[in-house]
Amino acid sequence: MRAVAGVGGLSVSLDLTKRESFSYFHREQIRFSDTDMLGHVNNVAYAAMVESGRIAYLRSVVPGLYVVMARIEIDYRAELHYPAEIDVGCALLRVGRSSIVLGNGVFDGDLCGAAAVTTLVLIDKVTRRSTPISDEARTRLDSVVR
Amino acid sequence: MRAVAGVGGLSVSLDLTKRESFSYFHREQIRFSDTDMLGHVNNVAYAAMVESGRIAYLRSVVPGLYVVMARIEIDYRAELHYPAEIDVGCALLRVGRSSIVLGNGVFDGDLCGAAAVTTLVLIDKVTRRSTPISDEARTRLDSVVR
Amino acid sequence: MRAVAGVGGLSVSLDLTKRESFSYFHREQIRFSDTDMLGHVNNVAYAAMVESGRIAYLRSVVPGLYVVMARIEIDYRAELHYPAEIDVGCALLRVGRSSIVLGNGVFDGDLCGAAAVTTLVLIDKVTRRSTPISDEARTRLDSVVR
Amino acid sequence: MRAVAGVGGLSVSLDLTKRESFSYFHREQIRFSDTDMLGHVNNVAYAAMVESGRIAYLRSVVPGLYVVMARIEIDYRAELHYPAEIDVGCALLRVGRSSIVLGNGVFDGDLCGAAAVTTLVLIDKVTRRSTPISDEARTRLDSVVR
Repeated sequence: MRAVAGVGGLSVSLDLTKRESFSYFHREQIRFSDTDMLGHVNNVAYAAMVESGRIAYLRSVVPGLYVVMARIEIDYRAELHYPAEIDVGCALLRVGRSSIVLGNGVFDGDLCGAAAVTTLVLIDKVTRRSTPISDEARTRLDSVVR
Repeated sequence: MRAVAGVGGLSVSLDLTKRESFSYFHREQIRFSDTDMLGHVNNVAYAAMVESGRIAYLRSVVPGLYVVMARIEIDYRAELHYPAEIDVGCALLRVGRSSIVLGNGVFDGDLCGAAAVTTLVLIDKVTRRSTPISDEARTRLDSVVR
Repeated sequence: MRAVAGVGGLSVSLDLTKRESFSYFHREQIRFSDTDMLGHVNNVAYAAMVESGRIAYLRSVVPGLYVVMARIEIDYRAELHYPAEIDVGCALLRVGRSSIVLGNGVFDGDLCGAAAVTTLVLIDKVTRRSTPISDEARTRLDSVVR
Repeated sequence: MRAVAGVGGLSVSLDLTKRESFSYFHREQIRFSDTDMLGHVNNVAYAAMVESGRIAYLRSVVPGLYVVMARIEIDYRAELHYPAEIDVGCALLRVGRSSIVLGNGVFDGDLCGAAAVTTLVLIDKVTRRSTPISDEARTRLDSVVR
Protein backbone atom coordinates (compact mmCIF):
# COMPACT_ATOMS: atom_id res chain seq x y z
CA MET A 1 0.00 0.00 0.00
CA ARG A 2 0.91 3.59 -0.33
CA ALA A 3 1.47 4.58 3.26
CA VAL A 4 -1.73 6.12 4.49
CA ALA A 5 -1.64 6.18 8.23
CA GLY A 6 -4.80 6.50 10.18
CA VAL A 7 -8.27 7.62 9.49
CA GLY A 8 -7.04 11.14 9.82
CA GLY A 9 -5.44 10.69 6.47
CA LEU A 10 -1.69 11.16 6.46
CA SER A 11 -0.60 10.42 2.96
CA VAL A 12 3.00 9.88 1.97
CA SER A 13 4.58 8.80 -1.25
CA LEU A 14 6.44 5.68 -0.17
CA ASP A 15 5.40 2.34 -1.57
CA LEU A 16 5.80 0.01 1.40
CA THR A 17 5.37 -3.07 -0.78
CA LYS A 18 8.70 -2.51 -2.58
CA ARG A 19 12.09 -3.41 -1.16
CA GLU A 20 13.66 -0.42 -2.83
CA SER A 21 11.54 1.91 -0.71
CA PHE A 22 13.65 0.98 2.32
CA SER A 23 17.23 1.59 3.30
CA TYR A 24 17.00 -0.18 6.69
CA PHE A 25 16.13 -3.86 7.04
CA HIS A 26 15.73 -6.06 10.08
CA ARG A 27 16.27 -9.79 9.59
CA GLU A 28 13.87 -12.28 11.21
CA GLN A 29 13.53 -16.05 11.06
CA ILE A 30 10.13 -17.57 10.46
CA ARG A 31 9.64 -20.02 13.33
CA PHE A 32 7.76 -23.26 12.96
CA SER A 33 5.35 -22.06 15.64
CA ASP A 34 4.59 -19.00 13.48
CA THR A 35 2.63 -21.24 11.12
CA ASP A 36 -1.02 -22.11 11.58
CA MET A 37 -3.40 -24.86 10.51
CA LEU A 38 -3.92 -23.18 7.13
CA GLY A 39 -0.31 -24.14 6.38
CA HIS A 40 1.08 -20.63 6.13
CA VAL A 41 2.55 -18.06 8.49
CA ASN A 42 -0.18 -16.87 10.84
CA ASN A 43 -1.06 -13.19 10.62
CA VAL A 44 -0.14 -12.68 14.27
CA ALA A 45 3.46 -13.59 13.49
CA TYR A 46 3.62 -10.77 10.94
CA ALA A 47 2.74 -8.38 13.74
CA ALA A 48 5.48 -9.84 15.94
CA MET A 49 8.10 -9.51 13.21
CA VAL A 50 7.02 -5.99 12.27
CA GLU A 51 7.25 -5.04 15.94
CA SER A 52 10.78 -6.37 16.25
CA GLY A 53 11.88 -4.56 13.11
CA ARG A 54 10.22 -1.35 14.20
CA ILE A 55 11.86 -1.35 17.61
CA ALA A 56 15.30 -2.25 16.28
CA TYR A 57 15.05 0.57 13.76
CA LEU A 58 13.77 3.14 16.21
CA ARG A 59 16.54 2.28 18.67
CA SER A 60 19.10 2.74 15.93
CA VAL A 61 17.79 6.27 15.36
CA VAL A 62 17.09 7.33 18.95
CA PRO A 63 17.90 4.97 21.81
CA GLY A 64 15.74 5.02 24.91
CA LEU A 65 12.39 6.29 23.68
CA TYR A 66 9.59 4.88 25.83
CA VAL A 67 6.73 4.34 23.43
CA VAL A 68 3.49 2.38 23.27
CA MET A 69 1.44 1.48 20.24
CA ALA A 70 -1.50 3.67 19.37
CA ARG A 71 -2.45 2.11 16.06
CA ILE A 72 -1.39 -0.41 13.47
CA GLU A 73 -2.62 -1.10 9.97
CA ILE A 74 -1.39 -4.18 8.16
CA ASP A 75 -2.12 -5.01 4.55
CA TYR A 76 -1.52 -8.69 3.95
CA ARG A 77 -0.22 -9.06 0.40
CA ALA A 78 0.99 -12.63 0.09
CA GLU A 79 1.11 -15.81 2.11
CA LEU A 80 4.49 -16.55 3.67
CA HIS A 81 5.69 -20.05 4.42
CA TYR A 82 8.04 -21.85 6.75
CA PRO A 83 11.01 -21.94 6.55
CA ALA A 84 12.12 -18.49 5.45
CA GLU A 85 14.33 -15.63 6.42
CA ILE A 86 12.36 -12.42 6.39
CA ASP A 87 13.53 -8.86 5.89
CA VAL A 88 11.45 -6.24 7.61
CA GLY A 89 11.97 -2.95 5.83
CA CYS A 90 11.66 0.03 8.17
CA ALA A 91 11.12 3.70 7.48
CA LEU A 92 10.07 6.71 9.53
CA LEU A 93 7.12 8.42 7.93
CA ARG A 94 6.18 11.19 10.28
CA VAL A 95 7.03 12.78 13.62
CA GLY A 96 4.28 14.47 15.58
CA ARG A 97 4.26 16.27 18.92
CA SER A 98 4.32 13.06 20.93
CA SER A 99 3.77 10.48 18.21
CA ILE A 100 5.81 8.73 15.54
CA VAL A 101 4.53 7.00 12.43
CA LEU A 102 6.58 4.16 10.96
CA GLY A 103 6.16 2.23 7.73
CA ASN A 104 7.20 -1.39 7.31
CA GLY A 105 7.36 -3.90 4.52
CA VAL A 106 7.73 -7.62 5.21
CA PHE A 107 9.76 -9.36 2.50
CA ASP A 108 10.72 -12.92 1.66
CA GLY A 109 13.26 -12.09 -1.01
CA ASP A 110 11.38 -9.74 -3.33
CA LEU A 111 7.98 -11.09 -2.35
CA CYS A 112 6.13 -8.61 -0.17
CA GLY A 113 4.12 -10.50 2.43
CA ALA A 114 2.72 -7.42 4.10
CA ALA A 115 2.95 -3.67 4.48
CA ALA A 116 2.28 -1.99 7.77
CA VAL A 117 1.91 1.49 9.18
CA THR A 118 2.28 1.93 12.92
CA THR A 119 1.63 4.92 15.12
CA LEU A 120 3.58 5.00 18.35
CA VAL A 121 3.08 7.43 21.20
CA LEU A 122 5.80 8.52 23.58
CA ILE A 123 4.58 8.08 27.15
CA ASP A 124 5.78 8.92 30.61
CA LYS A 125 6.82 5.72 32.41
CA VAL A 126 5.08 6.69 35.62
CA THR A 127 1.90 8.45 34.55
CA ARG A 128 1.51 6.27 31.41
CA ARG A 129 0.29 9.38 29.61
CA SER A 130 1.58 10.80 26.35
CA THR A 131 4.48 13.18 26.67
CA PRO A 132 6.12 15.43 24.05
CA ILE A 133 9.16 14.28 22.12
CA SER A 134 12.26 16.16 23.27
CA ASP A 135 14.01 18.55 20.90
CA GLU A 136 17.08 16.35 20.83
CA ALA A 137 15.09 13.25 19.89
CA ARG A 138 13.07 15.22 17.36
CA THR A 139 16.20 16.41 15.62
CA ARG A 140 17.41 12.87 15.18
CA LEU A 141 14.02 11.59 14.10
CA ASP A 142 13.48 14.44 11.64
CA SER A 143 16.79 13.63 9.98
CA VAL A 144 15.53 10.24 8.81
CA VAL A 145 11.89 10.98 7.94
CA ARG A 146 11.02 9.82 4.44
CA MET B 1 -12.90 4.16 16.84
CA ARG B 2 -15.86 4.54 14.62
CA ALA B 3 -15.42 1.62 12.32
CA VAL B 4 -13.74 2.89 9.20
CA ALA B 5 -12.39 -0.04 7.31
CA GLY B 6 -9.66 0.42 4.83
CA VAL B 7 -8.26 3.32 2.99
CA GLY B 8 -11.13 3.00 0.58
CA GLY B 9 -13.27 4.50 3.25
CA LEU B 10 -16.12 2.29 4.40
CA SER B 11 -17.75 4.18 7.19
CA VAL B 12 -20.28 2.64 9.54
CA SER B 13 -21.96 3.93 12.62
CA LEU B 14 -20.85 1.39 15.17
CA ASP B 15 -18.65 2.49 18.01
CA LEU B 16 -16.29 -0.45 18.46
CA THR B 17 -14.96 0.92 21.74
CA LYS B 18 -18.29 0.37 23.55
CA ARG B 19 -19.47 -2.99 24.87
CA GLU B 20 -23.06 -2.13 24.06
CA SER B 21 -22.21 -2.04 20.36
CA PHE B 22 -21.84 -5.83 20.40
CA SER B 23 -24.24 -8.69 20.88
CA TYR B 24 -21.63 -11.46 20.43
CA PHE B 25 -18.66 -11.84 22.73
CA HIS B 26 -15.80 -14.32 22.73
CA ARG B 27 -14.06 -14.93 26.04
CA GLU B 28 -10.25 -15.16 26.18
CA GLN B 29 -7.75 -15.50 29.00
CA ILE B 30 -4.74 -13.23 29.11
CA ARG B 31 -1.75 -15.56 29.35
CA PHE B 32 1.37 -14.71 31.27
CA SER B 33 3.34 -15.06 28.04
CA ASP B 34 1.10 -12.38 26.47
CA THR B 35 2.86 -9.77 28.59
CA ASP B 36 6.07 -8.03 27.56
CA MET B 37 8.94 -6.24 29.27
CA LEU B 38 6.91 -3.04 29.47
CA GLY B 39 4.75 -4.87 32.02
CA HIS B 40 1.55 -4.88 30.00
CA VAL B 41 -0.09 -7.13 27.44
CA ASN B 42 1.97 -7.04 24.25
CA ASN B 43 0.20 -5.68 21.19
CA VAL B 44 0.73 -8.95 19.33
CA ALA B 45 -1.48 -10.73 21.87
CA TYR B 46 -4.33 -8.36 21.06
CA ALA B 47 -4.10 -9.54 17.46
CA ALA B 48 -4.18 -13.18 18.57
CA MET B 49 -7.25 -12.64 20.74
CA VAL B 50 -9.05 -10.62 18.08
CA GLU B 51 -8.34 -13.40 15.60
CA SER B 52 -9.78 -16.05 17.88
CA GLY B 53 -12.90 -14.01 18.51
CA ARG B 54 -13.32 -13.23 14.84
CA ILE B 55 -13.05 -16.87 13.78
CA ALA B 56 -15.37 -18.13 16.50
CA TYR B 57 -17.94 -15.54 15.52
CA LEU B 58 -17.68 -16.15 11.80
CA ARG B 59 -18.03 -19.90 12.34
CA SER B 60 -21.14 -19.30 14.38
CA VAL B 61 -22.68 -17.44 11.44
CA VAL B 62 -21.42 -19.56 8.53
CA PRO B 63 -19.35 -22.67 9.24
CA GLY B 64 -16.68 -23.69 6.78
CA LEU B 65 -15.71 -20.45 5.05
CA TYR B 66 -12.07 -20.63 3.94
CA VAL B 67 -10.76 -17.12 4.42
CA VAL B 68 -7.42 -15.36 4.72
CA MET B 69 -6.69 -11.93 6.10
CA ALA B 70 -6.39 -9.06 3.69
CA ARG B 71 -6.12 -6.22 6.16
CA ILE B 72 -6.33 -5.34 9.81
CA GLU B 73 -6.47 -2.04 11.62
CA ILE B 74 -6.12 -1.97 15.37
CA ASP B 75 -6.55 1.10 17.54
CA TYR B 76 -4.94 0.55 20.91
CA ARG B 77 -7.01 2.38 23.49
CA ALA B 78 -5.75 1.24 26.88
CA GLU B 79 -3.05 -0.97 28.35
CA LEU B 80 -4.27 -4.37 29.49
CA HIS B 81 -2.63 -6.31 32.28
CA TYR B 82 -2.18 -9.87 33.42
CA PRO B 83 -4.21 -11.57 34.77
CA ALA B 84 -7.53 -10.79 33.14
CA GLU B 85 -10.41 -12.38 31.33
CA ILE B 86 -11.07 -10.56 28.10
CA ASP B 87 -14.26 -10.27 26.10
CA VAL B 88 -13.77 -9.84 22.39
CA GLY B 89 -16.88 -8.20 20.97
CA CYS B 90 -17.55 -9.27 17.38
CA ALA B 91 -19.74 -7.73 14.68
CA LEU B 92 -20.06 -8.13 10.95
CA LEU B 93 -19.75 -4.76 9.25
CA ARG B 94 -19.88 -5.50 5.57
CA VAL B 95 -20.12 -8.29 3.02
CA GLY B 96 -18.50 -7.79 -0.37
CA ARG B 97 -18.25 -10.01 -3.43
CA SER B 98 -15.52 -12.17 -1.96
CA SER B 99 -14.65 -10.20 1.17
CA ILE B 100 -16.01 -9.73 4.66
CA VAL B 101 -15.32 -6.87 7.05
CA LEU B 102 -15.55 -7.52 10.78
CA GLY B 103 -15.36 -5.15 13.71
CA ASN B 104 -14.01 -6.11 17.12
CA GLY B 105 -13.70 -4.52 20.51
CA VAL B 106 -11.37 -5.94 23.17
CA PHE B 107 -12.75 -5.42 26.67
CA ASP B 108 -11.54 -6.00 30.20
CA GLY B 109 -14.85 -5.39 31.92
CA ASP B 110 -15.94 -2.04 30.54
CA LEU B 111 -12.42 -0.93 29.71
CA CYS B 112 -11.81 -1.02 25.98
CA GLY B 113 -8.24 -2.12 25.32
CA ALA B 114 -8.53 -1.97 21.56
CA ALA B 115 -10.84 -1.73 18.59
CA ALA B 116 -10.12 -3.53 15.37
CA VAL B 117 -11.44 -3.75 11.84
CA THR B 118 -10.47 -6.77 9.78
CA THR B 119 -11.00 -7.50 6.11
CA LEU B 120 -11.08 -11.19 5.22
CA VAL B 121 -11.09 -12.62 1.74
CA LEU B 122 -12.64 -15.92 0.77
CA ILE B 123 -10.12 -17.97 -1.17
CA ASP B 124 -10.05 -21.22 -3.07
CA LYS B 125 -8.07 -23.81 -1.13
CA VAL B 126 -6.20 -25.01 -4.17
CA THR B 127 -5.56 -21.90 -6.25
CA ARG B 128 -5.19 -19.66 -3.16
CA ARG B 129 -7.02 -16.97 -5.13
CA SER B 130 -10.08 -15.03 -4.05
CA THR B 131 -13.39 -16.63 -4.87
CA PRO B 132 -16.95 -15.25 -4.63
CA ILE B 133 -19.06 -15.84 -1.54
CA SER B 134 -21.84 -18.30 -2.31
CA ASP B 135 -25.46 -17.15 -2.26
CA GLU B 136 -26.22 -19.38 0.69
CA ALA B 137 -23.34 -18.00 2.74
CA ARG B 138 -24.20 -14.46 1.70
CA THR B 139 -27.76 -14.84 2.90
CA ARG B 140 -26.56 -15.90 6.33
CA LEU B 141 -23.92 -13.19 6.48
CA ASP B 142 -26.29 -10.46 5.34
CA SER B 143 -28.70 -11.40 8.11
CA VAL B 144 -26.22 -10.31 10.80
CA VAL B 145 -24.57 -7.27 9.21
CA ARG B 146 -24.68 -4.26 11.51
CA MET C 1 3.25 -39.82 33.41
CA ARG C 2 3.70 -40.54 37.02
CA ALA C 3 5.18 -37.31 38.26
CA VAL C 4 8.92 -37.74 38.29
CA ALA C 5 10.48 -34.36 38.55
CA GLY C 6 14.01 -33.89 37.43
CA VAL C 7 16.85 -36.21 36.77
CA GLY C 8 17.50 -36.20 40.49
CA GLY C 9 14.51 -38.44 40.76
CA LEU C 10 11.69 -37.10 42.89
CA SER C 11 8.95 -39.64 42.59
CA VAL C 12 5.40 -39.03 43.67
CA SER C 13 2.28 -41.06 43.30
CA LEU C 14 0.13 -38.67 41.32
CA ASP C 15 -0.94 -39.62 37.82
CA LEU C 16 -0.82 -36.30 35.98
CA THR C 17 -2.63 -37.75 32.98
CA LYS C 18 -5.92 -38.19 34.89
CA ARG C 19 -8.38 -35.41 35.62
CA GLU C 20 -9.23 -36.97 38.96
CA SER C 21 -5.69 -36.37 40.17
CA PHE C 22 -6.41 -32.65 40.33
CA SER C 23 -8.65 -30.49 42.47
CA TYR C 24 -7.62 -27.18 40.88
CA PHE C 25 -8.19 -26.41 37.20
CA HIS C 26 -7.37 -23.37 35.12
CA ARG C 27 -9.46 -22.78 32.01
CA GLU C 28 -7.76 -21.73 28.76
CA GLN C 29 -9.00 -21.18 25.22
CA ILE C 30 -7.09 -22.69 22.34
CA ARG C 31 -6.38 -19.79 20.02
CA PHE C 32 -6.28 -20.13 16.26
CA SER C 33 -2.68 -18.92 16.34
CA ASP C 34 -1.83 -21.81 18.69
CA THR C 35 -2.15 -24.20 15.76
CA ASP C 36 0.68 -25.02 13.39
CA MET C 37 1.06 -26.28 9.83
CA LEU C 38 0.64 -29.87 11.02
CA GLY C 39 -2.99 -28.93 11.73
CA HIS C 40 -2.85 -29.42 15.48
CA VAL C 41 -2.01 -27.29 18.51
CA ASN C 42 1.70 -26.49 18.44
CA ASN C 43 3.73 -27.81 21.36
CA VAL C 44 4.79 -24.29 22.31
CA ALA C 45 1.17 -23.41 23.06
CA TYR C 46 0.99 -26.25 25.59
CA ALA C 47 3.87 -24.60 27.43
CA ALA C 48 2.06 -21.25 27.39
CA MET C 49 -1.14 -22.76 28.76
CA VAL C 50 0.68 -24.77 31.41
CA GLU C 51 2.48 -21.61 32.48
CA SER C 52 -0.75 -19.67 32.84
CA GLY C 53 -2.32 -22.46 34.88
CA ARG C 54 0.73 -22.82 37.05
CA ILE C 55 0.91 -19.11 37.85
CA ALA C 56 -2.81 -18.78 38.54
CA TYR C 57 -2.64 -21.76 40.87
CA LEU C 58 0.47 -20.62 42.69
CA ARG C 59 -1.02 -17.15 43.19
CA SER C 60 -4.13 -18.73 44.68
CA VAL C 61 -1.96 -20.50 47.27
CA VAL C 62 0.60 -17.78 48.00
CA PRO C 63 0.30 -14.38 46.31
CA GLY C 64 3.43 -12.46 45.50
CA LEU C 65 6.11 -15.13 45.13
CA TYR C 66 8.79 -13.98 42.67
CA VAL C 67 9.84 -17.11 40.86
CA VAL C 68 11.63 -18.08 37.67
CA MET C 69 11.62 -21.40 35.88
CA ALA C 70 14.46 -23.79 36.51
CA ARG C 71 13.17 -26.79 34.62
CA ILE C 72 10.20 -28.16 32.76
CA GLU C 73 9.37 -31.62 31.50
CA ILE C 74 6.39 -32.10 29.22
CA ASP C 75 5.06 -35.45 28.07
CA TYR C 76 2.88 -34.97 25.02
CA ARG C 77 0.11 -37.54 25.15
CA ALA C 78 -2.38 -36.59 22.48
CA GLU C 79 -2.80 -34.03 19.73
CA LEU C 80 -5.14 -31.17 20.59
CA HIS C 81 -7.13 -29.28 18.00
CA TYR C 82 -8.69 -25.89 17.48
CA PRO C 83 -11.23 -24.90 18.71
CA ALA C 84 -11.30 -26.21 22.27
CA GLU C 85 -11.55 -25.11 25.84
CA ILE C 86 -8.72 -26.59 27.84
CA ASP C 87 -8.53 -27.35 31.53
CA VAL C 88 -5.07 -27.18 33.02
CA GLY C 89 -5.00 -29.30 36.16
CA CYS C 90 -2.57 -27.96 38.75
CA ALA C 91 -1.02 -29.59 41.80
CA LEU C 92 1.87 -28.79 44.08
CA LEU C 93 4.24 -31.76 44.28
CA ARG C 94 7.10 -30.59 46.42
CA VAL C 95 8.49 -27.63 48.32
CA GLY C 96 12.25 -27.30 48.67
CA ARG C 97 14.44 -24.70 50.35
CA SER C 98 14.04 -22.19 47.57
CA SER C 99 12.29 -24.27 44.93
CA ILE C 100 8.78 -25.50 44.19
CA VAL C 101 7.77 -28.42 41.98
CA LEU C 102 4.37 -28.33 40.31
CA GLY C 103 2.54 -30.94 38.30
CA ASN C 104 0.12 -30.15 35.50
CA GLY C 105 -2.22 -32.04 33.25
CA VAL C 106 -3.65 -30.48 30.08
CA PHE C 107 -7.16 -31.74 29.34
CA ASP C 108 -9.68 -31.36 26.54
CA GLY C 109 -12.59 -32.95 28.34
CA ASP C 110 -11.19 -36.25 29.56
CA LEU C 111 -8.54 -36.41 26.88
CA CYS C 112 -5.11 -35.71 28.35
CA GLY C 113 -3.06 -33.75 25.83
CA ALA C 114 0.00 -33.45 28.02
CA ALA C 115 1.43 -33.84 31.50
CA ALA C 116 4.08 -31.51 32.80
CA VAL C 117 6.35 -31.15 35.80
CA THR C 118 7.88 -27.75 36.45
CA THR C 119 10.51 -26.67 38.91
CA LEU C 120 10.39 -23.04 39.93
CA VAL C 121 12.98 -21.19 41.97
CA LEU C 122 12.26 -18.24 44.20
CA ILE C 123 14.65 -15.42 43.37
CA ASP C 124 15.54 -12.05 44.74
CA LYS C 125 14.25 -9.33 42.39
CA VAL C 126 17.46 -7.34 42.57
CA THR C 127 20.24 -9.92 42.74
CA ARG C 128 18.34 -12.40 40.50
CA ARG C 129 19.73 -15.17 42.72
CA SER C 130 17.79 -17.88 44.47
CA THR C 131 16.49 -17.00 47.89
CA PRO C 132 14.86 -19.20 50.58
CA ILE C 133 11.10 -19.51 50.82
CA SER C 134 9.82 -17.66 53.89
CA ASP C 135 8.26 -19.63 56.76
CA GLU C 136 4.90 -18.04 56.13
CA ALA C 137 4.90 -18.97 52.45
CA ARG C 138 6.19 -22.45 53.26
CA THR C 139 3.34 -23.07 55.66
CA ARG C 140 0.80 -22.21 52.99
CA LEU C 141 2.59 -24.23 50.34
CA ASP C 142 3.03 -27.26 52.58
CA SER C 143 -0.70 -27.29 53.28
CA VAL C 144 -1.49 -28.09 49.64
CA VAL C 145 1.35 -30.44 48.69
CA ARG C 146 0.06 -33.65 47.17
CA MET D 1 22.73 -30.60 31.89
CA ARG D 2 24.34 -33.77 30.81
CA ALA D 3 21.86 -35.05 28.31
CA VAL D 4 19.60 -37.45 30.12
CA ALA D 5 16.54 -37.98 28.04
CA GLY D 6 13.38 -39.19 29.62
CA VAL D 7 12.48 -40.97 32.75
CA GLY D 8 13.58 -44.14 31.10
CA GLY D 9 17.09 -42.96 31.59
CA LEU D 10 19.09 -42.59 28.39
CA SER D 11 22.40 -41.15 29.43
CA VAL D 12 24.90 -39.69 27.00
CA SER D 13 28.12 -37.84 27.49
CA LEU D 14 27.36 -34.55 25.78
CA ASP D 15 27.27 -31.38 27.82
CA LEU D 16 24.43 -29.43 26.26
CA THR D 17 25.35 -26.28 28.15
CA LYS D 18 28.61 -25.82 26.22
CA ARG D 19 28.86 -24.35 22.74
CA GLU D 20 31.74 -26.65 21.90
CA SER D 21 29.45 -29.67 22.26
CA PHE D 22 27.71 -28.67 19.03
CA SER D 23 28.77 -28.55 15.41
CA TYR D 24 25.39 -27.34 14.08
CA PHE D 25 23.84 -24.04 15.10
CA HIS D 26 20.58 -22.40 14.14
CA ARG D 27 20.39 -18.62 14.42
CA GLU D 28 17.27 -16.99 15.93
CA GLN D 29 16.35 -13.42 16.80
CA ILE D 30 14.84 -12.65 20.17
CA ARG D 31 11.64 -10.78 19.40
CA PHE D 32 10.27 -8.02 21.59
CA SER D 33 7.12 -10.10 22.06
CA ASP D 34 9.28 -12.94 23.45
CA THR D 35 9.79 -10.93 26.61
CA ASP D 36 7.41 -10.99 29.56
CA MET D 37 6.52 -8.74 32.47
CA LEU D 38 9.49 -10.05 34.46
CA GLY D 39 11.67 -8.19 31.94
CA HIS D 40 13.38 -11.23 30.46
CA VAL D 41 12.71 -13.68 27.65
CA ASN D 42 9.66 -15.77 28.56
CA ASN D 43 10.27 -19.48 28.92
CA VAL D 44 7.76 -20.23 26.17
CA ALA D 45 9.98 -18.42 23.67
CA TYR D 46 12.84 -20.76 24.51
CA ALA D 47 10.63 -23.64 23.46
CA ALA D 48 9.76 -21.89 20.19
CA MET D 49 13.42 -21.25 19.37
CA VAL D 50 14.48 -24.77 20.33
CA GLU D 51 11.74 -26.10 18.07
CA SER D 52 12.89 -24.05 15.12
CA GLY D 53 16.49 -25.14 15.59
CA ARG D 54 15.49 -28.76 16.00
CA ILE D 55 13.41 -28.82 12.84
CA ALA D 56 16.00 -26.99 10.74
CA TYR D 57 18.66 -29.43 11.91
CA LEU D 58 16.57 -32.52 11.37
CA ARG D 59 15.63 -31.36 7.87
CA SER D 60 19.31 -30.87 7.09
CA VAL D 61 19.96 -34.51 8.01
CA VAL D 62 16.84 -36.16 6.59
CA PRO D 63 14.29 -34.06 4.71
CA GLY D 64 10.64 -35.01 4.90
CA LEU D 65 10.33 -36.86 8.20
CA TYR D 66 6.83 -36.43 9.62
CA VAL D 67 7.33 -36.25 13.36
CA VAL D 68 5.43 -35.09 16.43
CA MET D 69 6.77 -34.31 19.87
CA ALA D 70 6.58 -36.97 22.52
CA ARG D 71 8.54 -35.28 25.24
CA ILE D 72 10.66 -32.26 26.04
CA GLU D 73 12.85 -31.42 29.00
CA ILE D 74 14.26 -27.94 29.33
CA ASP D 75 16.75 -26.83 31.93
CA TYR D 76 16.71 -23.06 32.22
CA ARG D 77 20.24 -21.94 33.03
CA ALA D 78 20.27 -18.17 32.65
CA GLU D 79 17.88 -15.34 31.90
CA LEU D 80 18.05 -14.05 28.34
CA HIS D 81 17.19 -10.50 27.40
CA TYR D 82 15.98 -8.53 24.42
CA PRO D 83 17.55 -7.72 22.04
CA ALA D 84 19.83 -10.64 21.24
CA GLU D 85 20.75 -13.02 18.48
CA ILE D 86 20.55 -16.57 19.74
CA ASP D 87 22.38 -19.66 18.54
CA VAL D 88 20.52 -22.90 19.05
CA GLY D 89 23.04 -25.73 19.12
CA CYS D 90 21.58 -28.97 17.76
CA ALA D 91 22.76 -32.57 18.10
CA LEU D 92 21.22 -35.96 17.51
CA LEU D 93 21.52 -38.09 20.62
CA ARG D 94 19.70 -41.28 19.80
CA VAL D 95 17.69 -43.06 17.12
CA GLY D 96 15.07 -45.58 18.19
CA ARG D 97 12.68 -47.74 16.22
CA SER D 98 10.26 -44.89 15.55
CA SER D 99 11.70 -42.18 17.77
CA ILE D 100 14.54 -39.68 17.69
CA VAL D 101 16.14 -37.90 20.62
CA LEU D 102 17.73 -34.50 20.04
CA GLY D 103 19.78 -32.31 22.33
CA ASN D 104 19.81 -28.52 22.15
CA GLY D 105 21.66 -25.70 23.81
CA VAL D 106 20.42 -22.11 23.62
CA PHE D 107 23.28 -19.62 23.57
CA ASP D 108 23.63 -15.86 23.67
CA GLY D 109 27.32 -15.72 22.82
CA ASP D 110 28.87 -18.12 25.29
CA LEU D 111 26.09 -17.73 27.82
CA CYS D 112 23.92 -20.83 27.92
CA GLY D 113 20.32 -19.80 28.50
CA ALA D 114 18.93 -23.32 28.40
CA ALA D 115 19.59 -26.92 27.52
CA ALA D 116 16.88 -29.15 26.14
CA VAL D 117 16.31 -32.78 25.26
CA THR D 118 13.46 -33.59 22.93
CA THR D 119 11.98 -36.91 21.93
CA LEU D 120 10.23 -36.95 18.58
CA VAL D 121 8.15 -39.77 17.18
CA LEU D 122 7.71 -40.51 13.51
CA ILE D 123 4.01 -40.83 12.73
CA ASP D 124 1.88 -41.81 9.79
CA LYS D 125 0.13 -38.74 8.40
CA VAL D 126 -3.19 -40.50 8.05
CA THR D 127 -3.43 -42.81 11.05
CA ARG D 128 -1.50 -40.35 13.32
CA ARG D 129 0.13 -43.40 14.88
CA SER D 130 3.83 -44.04 15.31
CA THR D 131 5.55 -45.71 12.40
CA PRO D 132 9.07 -47.15 12.07
CA ILE D 133 11.91 -45.08 10.68
CA SER D 134 12.88 -46.32 7.20
CA ASP D 135 16.27 -47.91 6.66
CA GLU D 136 17.34 -45.08 4.42
CA ALA D 137 16.43 -42.43 6.97
CA ARG D 138 18.03 -44.47 9.75
CA THR D 139 21.31 -44.67 7.87
CA ARG D 140 21.44 -40.91 7.56
CA LEU D 141 20.42 -40.34 11.14
CA ASP D 142 22.88 -42.88 12.52
CA SER D 143 25.70 -41.13 10.70
CA VAL D 144 25.29 -38.00 12.82
CA VAL D 145 24.42 -39.44 16.24
CA ARG D 146 26.68 -38.08 18.97
